[in-house]
Amino acid sequence: MSPTLTPTAQVELHIEVTDFYARQMPLLEQGELEAFADTFTEDCVFGYDGAWQVVGRDALLGGVRANIPRYGTSKIRHWFESRRIAVREDGVIESSATSLVSVTSEKGDVTFEPSCVVRDQLVRTEDGLRVSSRVIRHDLPDAGVYFARLAASHG
Amino acid sequence: MSPTLTPTAQVELHIEVTDFYARQMPLLEQGELEAFADTFTEDCVFGYDGAWQVVGRDALLGGVRANIPRYGTSKIRHWFESRRIAVREDGVIESSATSLVSVTSEKGDVTFEPSCVVRDQLVRTEDGLRVSSRVIRHDLPDAGVYFARLAASHG
Amino acid sequence: MSPTLTPTAQVELHIEVTDFYARQMPLLEQGELEAFADTFTEDCVFGYDGAWQVVGRDALLGGVRANIPRYGTSKIRHWFESRRIAVREDGVIESSATSLVSVTSEKGDVTFEPSCVVRDQLVRTEDGLRVSSRVIRHDLPDAGVYFARLAASHG
Repeated sequence: MSPTLTPTAQVELHIEVTDFYARQMPLLEQGELEAFADTFTEDCVFGYDGAWQVVGRDALLGGVRANIPRYGTSKIRHWFESRRIAVREDGVIESSATSLVSVTSEKGDVTFEPSCVVRDQLVRTEDGLRVSSRVIRHDLPDAGVYFARLAASHG
Repeated sequence: MSPTLTPTAQVELHIEVTDFYARQMPLLEQGELEAFADTFTEDCVFGYDGAWQVVGRDALLGGVRANIPRYGTSKIRHWFESRRIAVREDGVIESSATSLVSVTSEKGDVTFEPSCVVRDQLVRTEDGLRVSSRVIRHDLPDAGVYFARLAASHG
Repeated sequence: MSPTLTPTAQVELHIEVTDFYARQMPLLEQGELEAFADTFTEDCVFGYDGAWQVVGRDALLGGVRANIPRYGTSKIRHWFESRRIAVREDGVIESSATSLVSVTSEKGDVTFEPSCVVRDQLVRTEDGLRVSSRVIRHDLPDAGVYFARLAASHG
């Protein structure tokens, strides 16, 4: 919560931000990668602690295009909890949450990637909210080991 | 979000709809199947893409009664994410979300059914919100294969 | 929902309570056990149906300190669904939800503890909302068997 906002403004912000993610994440899940990238600012920062980090929407799109194919015929879905929202003095909205990614295989088996914390900065543009920064930190003592193992298993 | 609603009305609708599901789904989970069926309209449509689909509350109750016993002593719980809510011009509320069903065995082991998208139409009645249509689509290339395998494993 | 509250007050309460949990549960997950205990009242009741139950914040802290180490290098996260909130005539807020706990091992494998229902009573203090009572009931025919097995596997 942000002490500078009225209760009504806080509530509206909370619903607005929740709604933003409800529309953003299915784009990634459905493979609409360009539309997903368009929910970020052109100069965005996007990164996984201990793995790849990029600057700029084009680089983000490249990173996503390189990584999504490893799921093959499986379908990923994102699950969020403990969303915390605050507005900085400069108007940037800080929004962080715990997240899980489920992976449903074409046979219907479900596994999960390690839980993580997603820390976003959102800004208001004429097209609505956009992510200017996303940093994802997995709940692992050494995320690098995990990502290396992942890369190895996908050749 | 619905452009025709004020921010306040949108927020109240969002909480009202969320609260509806918070009360509806535990009825199914706790085996209160008649009370669960009563949260649908009498002429409701209910269906799983690639499997059974029914029309009418009585048929829905029959379908649920036929399917829930396969869980035996396990307990199911429903998890939702990315809830998207919009109001049509005719007043029908379109509400869709991603969903997972967890299955906790009596020994405490937890498995999940394939993730899915649940698309509801809600209408206002004198008894509050009711589901007039629910269509569930699993995140599978061929849900029919999954349901056939499920049916086979339960004789 | 509470019939005595205006829609606006209900919405603000819902967001306030959701925000409380979004800040409370990460404290436990990050091992900030004293800060977690401080989110309960000094005379709180805390218990697991079929296992340990304690009275008082100090006893709660002792119970948490005794139990959290069994996770070792794994990281737990809490997931909630179907949050139901009501205000009693005496002002106590009754808040219950379905919950899952994910356990991410240091290698990145994810398992889940049995789903459960968490029933809280929240009170307003000069420091904000505090839990005066939390009772957790796992979705198991006999939670005692589960906890005994758990205790045995951890020596």
